[in-house]
Formats: sequence, C-alpha cells, structure tokens
Amino acid sequence: MDYVSVNYLTKKPKLKNPIFVEGLPGIGNVGKIAVEHLIDSIKAVKFAELYSKDFPPQVFINTDGTIKLVNNEFYYWKAKKRNQRDLLLLTGDYQGLSSQGQYELVETILDLAESLGVKEMYTLGGYGLGHELQTPEVLCATTHKHLVKTMKKYGAVFKKNEPGGGIVGASGLLLGLGGLRDIQGTCFMGETPGYLVDPKSAKAVLKILVKILNVDINFSSLEKKAKEIEHIAHQLKEIEAGSKEKSEELKYIG
Amino acid sequence: MDYVSVNYLTKKPKLKNPIFVEGLPGIGNVGKIAVEHLIDSIKAVKFAELYSKDFPPQVFINTDGTIKLVNNEFYYWKAKKRNQRDLLLLTGDYQGLSSQGQYELVETILDLAESLGVKEMYTLGGYGLGHELQTPEVLCATTHKHLVKTMKKYGAVFKKNEPGGGIVGASGLLLGLGGLRDIQGTCFMGETPGYLVDPKSAKAVLKILVKILNVDINFSSLEKKAKEIEHIAHQLKEIEAGSKEKSEELKYIG
Amino acid sequence: MDYVSVNYLTKKPKLKNPIFVEGLPGIGNVGKIAVEHLIDSIKAVKFAELYSKDFPPQVFINTDGTIKLVNNEFYYWKAKKRNQRDLLLLTGDYQGLSSQGQYELVETILDLAESLGVKEMYTLGGYGLGHELQTPEVLCATTHKHLVKTMKKYGAVFKKNEPGGGIVGASGLLLGLGGLRDIQGTCFMGETPGYLVDPKSAKAVLKILVKILNVDINFSSLEKKAKEIEHIAHQLKEIEAGSKEKSEELKYIG
Amino acid sequence: MDYVSVNYLTKKPKLKNPIFVEGLPGIGNVGKIAVEHLIDSIKAVKFAELYSKDFPPQVFINTDGTIKLVNNEFYYWKAKKRNQRDLLLLTGDYQGLSSQGQYELVETILDLAESLGVKEMYTLGGYGLGHELQTPEVLCATTHKHLVKTMKKYGAVFKKNEPGGGIVGASGLLLGLGGLRDIQGTCFMGETPGYLVDPKSAKAVLKILVKILNVDINFSSLEKKAKEIEHIAHQLKEIEAGSKEKSEELKYIG
Repeated sequence: MDYVSVNYLTKKPKLKNPIFVEGLPGIGNVGKIAVEHLIDSIKAVKFAELYSKDFPPQVFINTDGTIKLVNNEFYYWKAKKRNQRDLLLLTGDYQGLSSQGQYELVETILDLAESLGVKEMYTLGGYGLGHELQTPEVLCATTHKHLVKTMKKYGAVFKKNEPGGGIVGASGLLLGLGGLRDIQGTCFMGETPGYLVDPKSAKAVLKILVKILNVDINFSSLEKKAKEIEHIAHQLKEIEAGSKEKSEELKYIG
Repeated sequence: MDYVSVNYLTKKPKLKNPIFVEGLPGIGNVGKIAVEHLIDSIKAVKFAELYSKDFPPQVFINTDGTIKLVNNEFYYWKAKKRNQRDLLLLTGDYQGLSSQGQYELVETILDLAESLGVKEMYTLGGYGLGHELQTPEVLCATTHKHLVKTMKKYGAVFKKNEPGGGIVGASGLLLGLGGLRDIQGTCFMGETPGYLVDPKSAKAVLKILVKILNVDINFSSLEKKAKEIEHIAHQLKEIEAGSKEKSEELKYIG
Repeated sequence: MDYVSVNYLTKKPKLKNPIFVEGLPGIGNVGKIAVEHLIDSIKAVKFAELYSKDFPPQVFINTDGTIKLVNNEFYYWKAKKRNQRDLLLLTGDYQGLSSQGQYELVETILDLAESLGVKEMYTLGGYGLGHELQTPEVLCATTHKHLVKTMKKYGAVFKKNEPGGGIVGASGLLLGLGGLRDIQGTCFMGETPGYLVDPKSAKAVLKILVKILNVDINFSSLEKKAKEIEHIAHQLKEIEAGSKEKSEELKYIG
Repeated sequence: MDYVSVNYLTKKPKLKNPIFVEGLPGIGNVGKIAVEHLIDSIKAVKFAELYSKDFPPQVFINTDGTIKLVNNEFYYWKAKKRNQRDLLLLTGDYQGLSSQGQYELVETILDLAESLGVKEMYTLGGYGLGHELQTPEVLCATTHKHLVKTMKKYGAVFKKNEPGGGIVGASGLLLGLGGLRDIQGTCFMGETPGYLVDPKSAKAVLKILVKILNVDINFSSLEKKAKEIEHIAHQLKEIEAGSKEKSEELKYIG
C-alpha cells in the first residue's frame, strides 16, 4: 500500500469530457452532504476507493456488524441527455490529517481525474460564519478569471476579501494544484453557522451546481434533514437559555 | 533498519493453515492481557520481534539490569489435537504513535501473517464504557457478513451503532487492511470501564476465543489479577469518596 | 509534485555573480516587508514559484475572485549601473511548518540559488524584544568572520549573546546550510516589539541593505505604513489602558 | 543532505578497538556536561559533525558574531598508555525531535561507530528524581547480563524497577539498537533533581567512567560549576519561600 492508494472495484470507466465534483467532510459537512445527495439522486456508480496512511487508523462498523475501513470513494455517472455531461464524483469519510497528507491525497485525486479526462471541476464546502443566518448565500472562487462572470450568472456570490483566510483543505487545494495542471476549477462555499451539519447550506450549494450540470434532482430529503437539524438547534438553544437563566437566578441567590 | 522491521530469533516456523490472534496495548489493556495469558497458558514460542521507528525511542529495564528495546513480539503454537489449528500470536509494548506508523505497522504484520499462510484472524481489544459494570459483554465486528452469525453462536454480542466511533487502532486496522487482502477477520471487544487495566474483561474475551480455538486454558491467574484490580478500584473509590465528603464538609463550614 | 518543487514561469534567468536576498514571513514580518518593498521599488521580475507539501493545504482568494496556491516566489533583477550586481530575491506566504519541511525548503532554495551562481546572500528577519522601542537597531550574524567587520561599517550591530536563542527559521537555516556550501551569508535582524507587523523595523533593515547593494529606493510608502501601524498600536494601548482602569475601578467597588 | 548526514572535518581517524562514549542533552544535561568535560580534559579532537532534518531549523550565534548550525559532534582520542583504549566521543546541541528522528539519528551514529570498530559503548544521562538530594548515585543498565556485575564493581547502582519508565531518548536507544548489532553497551544515569543543569551529577557519572577508561582528569572546573548552580538553586528557593510567605501573609489579611 502506497501513502495514498486507489483500489478499483470495477473496470476503470470510460468517460467523455467528464465534470469532476468533490465534496469531502468539512465545515458544516456542507460539501459531503451535497455530493452524497447528488450521488443518491442521480444513482451514480461507485467504482474506486482511495485509502491513505494519513487517514486515522480506524474502521467504522456497519449496521450488519461488518467493518468498513475509512476511505474516500469515487463514483461516475453517464450523461442521459444532450445538454448533460458525464460526471466523476468524490466523497469520503476524512480529509488528510497532516499538510503533507492533504497534498498527497489531492495529487492522487487529480491523477485519477486527469486519467479519466477531467478538465473542469467543482469543489464544494462550507463557509463558517460563526453566527446564525436566514438564507445561506453561496460564495465562490475560481482558478480562472473568465469563470467569475459565469458563476455569478448561476447565482454564486463573490465578496471581496471573503473568506479572509482563503480556503483551507481539499476543496482549496484541488483548485490550487489543479490550476497548475490547467484544470478549470470552481469552489462553491455555502454559508453556514458551522456549529452543526448543515443540509440547508448543502441544498443552496446544490441548487447552483445542478443548473451547471443540467441535472434535475429532488431536494425533499435534504429539506427534511434541514428541518430536523433546525429542530435540534432550537432545542440546544433552549437548553442553553435555560441554563443561563438558572445561572442568572443563582447569581441573585448566591 | 526499515521504518518497521522484523527480526527473526529462530528459523521462520512452518505453520499449517494457522489462525492469527492479535492483542496489543489499548483501552484497559484488554487485548494485551488476553493474548499474553493465552501465550503463557499454551506455552507458545517466541520467534520474531518487530521494531518500528514510530514506537517511542525507549528501552525498558529488566529486573536483571539489562535493557529491552520496545517492540512487538510474534509467537507460534503447533496444534496438539485434531480439532485444533496452528496459531500465530502477536503482542507487544506499543502500537504506532502516528497514523502513518499504524498503517505501516499493520501492513508489516499482515505481510508476515500472510507469508505464514494466515487466512483467518482474531483481534482483541477493549470497549471503554466510562462507567463501572458488573459482567462485561464481548462486542464483535467482522470483515465478512457470514462471520456475524458464527460469532453470535460463540457468545459475542452485536449492538447496533456500537462502538459508535468504530474501532481505532491496530485491532480495527488489521481487519480493514486484512479485509482488502481477503483475510477473514473478527474483532472481539471486551466491555471495560477503561480506567484501569482490566483482567476481568480480558477473561471474558478469552472465554469466547478458546471455544473457537478449541484450546483448554486455566483462568485462575487472570481471576486473581482481576481481584487485585477490583481491590485497587475499591480503594481508589474510597479515597475519592473521602475527599468528596471532606469537600462537602468544607462547604458547610465555609 | 516533489516534497518541495519549483515551477518556472519563464526561462531560467542568466545572472552574473548575483546577490541573493531572502525575506520570508516571521517575527513582525520584518523580512517579508523589506524584501517586498525592495522588489516593488526596483521592479524585479518574478520568474519561479516554489511549492511545498509542508506549507498549509491552503489557497488565498485574490481580489478578482481567483485563487492563489500558497507559495514562495523568486524574483530577479539585472544590474543597471557599474557598482551594482544582479539580484535574486525570495519572498513568500509561509515558511515550512515542520523542522523537516524547513530543511527541505532551504535546501531547495539553495539548490536554485547555486544553480544561478549565488555565492553571497543576505537573509532578513526581525528580532522580537517583547517591548516597545524608539529606534530599532539592526542586529547581525554572519557565516564568515571577515564579514563581521564589513557589516559593522554598514551600520549593523553585533551584541554579545543576542539573540540568545540564535536564529530560528529560514533566515538562520539558509546561513547554516549555505555555509556548508561555502556561500557567504549575512543575516540582518531588525529589532521589533514583535506584536504587530513592523514596517519601521523593515525600513531600518533595508537602509543597511541598499547601501550594500548600491540601489537607490524610496521609503515613503514604508514610512506611511509605519505611521498606520503606530496609530493602530496607540489605539490598542488606549483600549488596554481603558479596560485596565475599568478593572481597577471594579476592584474598588467589588 | 540526507535525513541525517555526517560531515567529516578531517580524514576519518583510524582507531584501535575504540570505546564509544555518548553524552547528548537531556535531564539535567548530565550526559552532555560529563562528555564535554571529558573531551576538554583529555583534549579529544573533533573530526565530524552530524546534521539532521529532525533537529530544530536553528543556528546559534558565536561570541565572534558568526553562526553555528545546530548539530552533534564526534571527537576521537588516541590512547596514551598501555592500560588505556582509543576513544570515540559524541556530544551535541540536540537530540532528534520526533520518534522517527531519534531512530534515524541513533542508526547513523551506530553506523559511524561500527565503521570505526566500536564494540563497546557507554551512554551517559541523568535520572530525574523531582526532589533534591545530597549525594547523587549513578544508576546503570546494560545490554548484556555479564556487564551488570562489572559495573557494580565500578560503583554503579542497580535498583529494581528504576527508572520505572525505562530510558527514553538517545542514551537508551543506542543501547537498544546497538544491542541488536551486538555492541556491548552500558548506560550510566546520574541522579539529579532535574530542575537545573547538574554538574554535580555529571561529576558522579564521570568518576565511574574514568575508572573504566583509565584516564586521569581534573574535576575542579566541574566542582566550581556545581557550586555556582547550588548557589542559584539556593537563591531560587529563597525567592520561592519569600513569595510563599507573602501569599501566606496575604491569606491572613485577605
């Protein structure tokens, strides 16, 4: 096993001018939720697993009692209509733990993507605001200047100096290292409080992406999850308010 | 010396369809205690030591004043009866310190196990509950679905979503990376408070394992150690209760 | 991509007996500010980028919405007058994160510098005093004894046992590893409180360097930035004083 | 430059059945002080420097204003009398920062020692007690059982289960990895409070070592340093006592 290694489950698919979409775990898990929902909706096919010595030494336990080594997973989808394009999709359990691990992971991902003919990619993530918000906007950054105008048309937002710290992690690094390979890349970052997983922000990101991909998907399951999370957030707030009140009371007593 | 290197003390043993059993340090030291007790009981023979640059740079001092470089140790045991199988056993002082070190360690262990013909393995560990318990159950996870039914028959327990965080460390990774090599693997996790070393939990794990291995071992020394630990735990609780009472008293005074 | 890799943007320049000047981020960002001001002033030409797997996995976002992978950047400048020499200049977003990363980075920098004919270099940094100061002096250390006298003539200061901890980071390591290659090196360290970026200290360092390089540059933009920082420092002090006063008051009340 | 690399300053010396003595920084700097005093006393000759990417990226500044890249240094000494043996000596600024770095460092040291014919070695360090002591004893551990008796004769002490945590760092690892190469090794650990550098403990260690080496050295400079440290320790205690008294007083007032 190499530092990062690819394990093909099926023959390597033949894709025609495919678009690559990435969504790994991160702030609010926005990217991962979005890509997983897309994979489920379009019934993409898993064809390869990626393991790394920089992932935690960990297996998850499936509901049937079997184990699953933590990994990243590649899916593909063949275009069904004239205005669609073949897709390569990536999601997974973890990003690399170390700087070097992240660089190695992203280089391996780009090697595989390039070998399948990828010249265009979208990386999905969250932009943590640290406060609640009503309607998440989708911030954007691109490898090439001409993409900025295009993405604005699709509804993405460019705010000067935001995110101030740039983009840390696979979503940013794919653009950075992909740009050196002349892959045109765009990163969509859904605004999110960043406290909990955020299906609402994932939906906002997907809404823009599906316009670009010309695929038609149903958002109802995402919306249902978003409501559940909203409910949990509300409960947490009440508990917090309660304990605050209590501690206020205690101050008067004490 | 490689990143991980194997040092043979004797000629490489020739084993017939051996079963591999691993028990390295971990929560409650359950796996290590169990395998060490098994090794002592069946008088298995040490034949190889494994060193890693990812172990601490440390030697232990033996009671005779000589030193021992920290390592992992391989033992073998030849079947004595028809219904038994040859055994390969692993225990040691440490697991790898880093993620990469764990992956390298486990790959080297699997290389050695495969070279001896291993196609079936059992990894032993503890499942830390963070609270006391009367009778530890033995949780289980497997590489292959058909093993689940078998292990239930032997008394292992499958609880949905437990352990919630999966299995972290060598016991899990051996299953994960071994599964990729088509080695059938099972992990037994003895429930344990996780505060102290836990011979009682180790005994619970061994009770199941020896049924599978068809070996007959005496548990009295393990039971004795379990009583000693129980005694220490009791004393610690009294000390804690004492200091708590004292601080309660102080509150009334203060 | 290697652990550290160089990406040429243009043909490798041909330089005649060039002087190498380095200023990467560090205490008060003194070195980086100084070299960037020099690059801007003399209109040096960027010709290579350096990437490292030991930099953070991060891209910055430019004001036009495009991304920039974090890197180090090489510039060159051809001598315009008889008493000048060709220059090789280095600045960047980060130093290596780990010890090994720093050594690899510096070795790659020295390889490139040597391949361009560098036999003399100046590394720029800050010397954090942890308290405010009126006029920053410029401390100095060199690879060769005969350079000490020369640098004193240019106004650099040698204080016995200062900095006590030596020089940590690329500025020191370039001298250390460069010295093993027989490159004559000098490190200038501008005194700085070390709390904020310090253009005033950068100016003090540059004042000495330009005498050595025989280049004539304008300091007005540096001076303007220095005033802005002074203003911010003053405001921070007032806020601090205010909250201190408040807490003093509270003590009398409480 | 390799991960660890050796830089010869002179031709590789030819030694006859040399004894290797190591003293790198550690608890109380006991080993380093002892070996440095030995090197000075017998006027050993520096012949090689050892650099590692796992040392901090740091240079020290000499009193003449030049820099020194942090390193380890090898010295040799040729026997002057019949009952003496040639010596190889090692001291330095740092041990490796990481586990892997320590293993690589020690392997390189052993490679060099073996290439010079070393079959016997002494590693020197401190044993931190965490409390003051009158007369430091010198604890001992060896690679081979027959050495235990010999070392007792020279005045070294073996205490069962001490140090309880074994020996961490180069002094231990040299014995561990050296033992695998059949080098006979002994580690002397001078008892020390461990708070400050401890020339007194270093002297105790050296007193035993010189009996083995049959070299005659003067301890007066070590004794002088020990007195200075005792003075500092006394002052620190008074300051501490003072502030404690003060806080006691405050308690009565408050």
